[in-house]
Amino acid sequence: MINYPNGKKQKNTTDKTLSATNRGMTLENDINLSNDFYLEVEKANIHKKPTPVQIVTVDYPKRSAAKISEAYFKVPSTTDYNGVYKGKAIDFEAKECSSKTSFPFSSIHPHQIKHLKSVLSHGAIAFVIIRFSKYNETYFVEAHKVIEAYSGEKRSLPYDWFKQEAILIPTGLCPRVDYLKVIDQLYLGGQK
Amino acid sequence: MINYPNGKKQKNTTDKTLSATNRGMTLENDINLSNDFYLEVEKANIHKKPTPVQIVTVDYPKRSAAKISEAYFKVPSTTDYNGVYKGKAIDFEAKECSSKTSFPFSSIHPHQIKHLKSVLSHGAIAFVIIRFSKYNETYFVEAHKVIEAYSGEKRSLPYDWFKQEAILIPTGLCPRVDYLKVIDQLYLGGQK
Repeated sequence: MINYPNGKKQKNTTDKTLSATNRGMTLENDINLSNDFYLEVEKANIHKKPTPVQIVTVDYPKRSAAKISEAYFKVPSTTDYNGVYKGKAIDFEAKECSSKTSFPFSSIHPHQIKHLKSVLSHGAIAFVIIRFSKYNETYFVEAHKVIEAYSGEKRSLPYDWFKQEAILIPTGLCPRVDYLKVIDQLYLGGQK
Repeated sequence: MINYPNGKKQKNTTDKTLSATNRGMTLENDINLSNDFYLEVEKANIHKKPTPVQIVTVDYPKRSAAKISEAYFKVPSTTDYNGVYKGKAIDFEAKECSSKTSFPFSSIHPHQIKHLKSVLSHGAIAFVIIRFSKYNETYFVEAHKVIEAYSGEKRSLPYDWFKQEAILIPTGLCPRVDYLKVIDQLYLGGQK
């Protein structure tokens, strides 16, 4: 490998990313980068909501920024991502799954299912993005399918279910997770 | 005043709220309660985003919840509220103004103006809710009007401007700030 003229080693990213686009990247990071890209090219405005925290104590040191010295994580009452695309309200949750065989429902809060039901009833395009990390496959699951399955007796969704009921999201370098392409196909008149 | 049978004093709210609905209530609180109401009656799904904080240190004490022991407030890159109403993406910021004569632009971050422009271009219904606390008047200002005024040379918007360009939001007990009524009138075919 050729180093930079200053003698520093070039960051070794290219060869790795070419062979396995998402290796070492979390789903959250991939989605955030995709959203940055969509925002930049003025395709959509979709953001991750900040992590909800309960702030208990804030210190105000002289001549420096207010410091939160005691706070706790709160259980989220909504999904993590929302925004607007082609006039439509977009609302979704993203989950990474380390199992090879199934996605456990325990990783989605009941609040979030209730929220998905609600936004769906108000006309949002709602869905869940689930990545099977072991296969490096990222699926788009329409909210109504998740809600239906969640309401049943099952405690998880088998990997095969995704093959049949969900849509594999095209991944690449930019955007890394092109979920808007799936939305175009499913909801906005494109071909499936 | 008649006390509860257990001897405890009744919380003194009714007589005060009747005489001045919003006295002592912050705009944020009023909007949150209005959103709770809209959610409850299944009229809309609109939430305040959590306050964005940069988490630096988290302690994991044995047998108790993870404690954030160092974190800092971040400048918000979006508006505070968004959601979905009648299939439309809703996006807005809310600001309280203590001046009697004008609303200073310094209370809106440039990021937020950029964000309003962006969501507007993608088809959201975008606006700013501004309350003149001294008059207890809460105004609905369409985003394009705020953006236009912000881009000019003025550093503030005079109170009189609101009388002409903005819409006074009906306030009451439930919902406290009925901004969806204004949206119905302005965007969804109702009368102005």
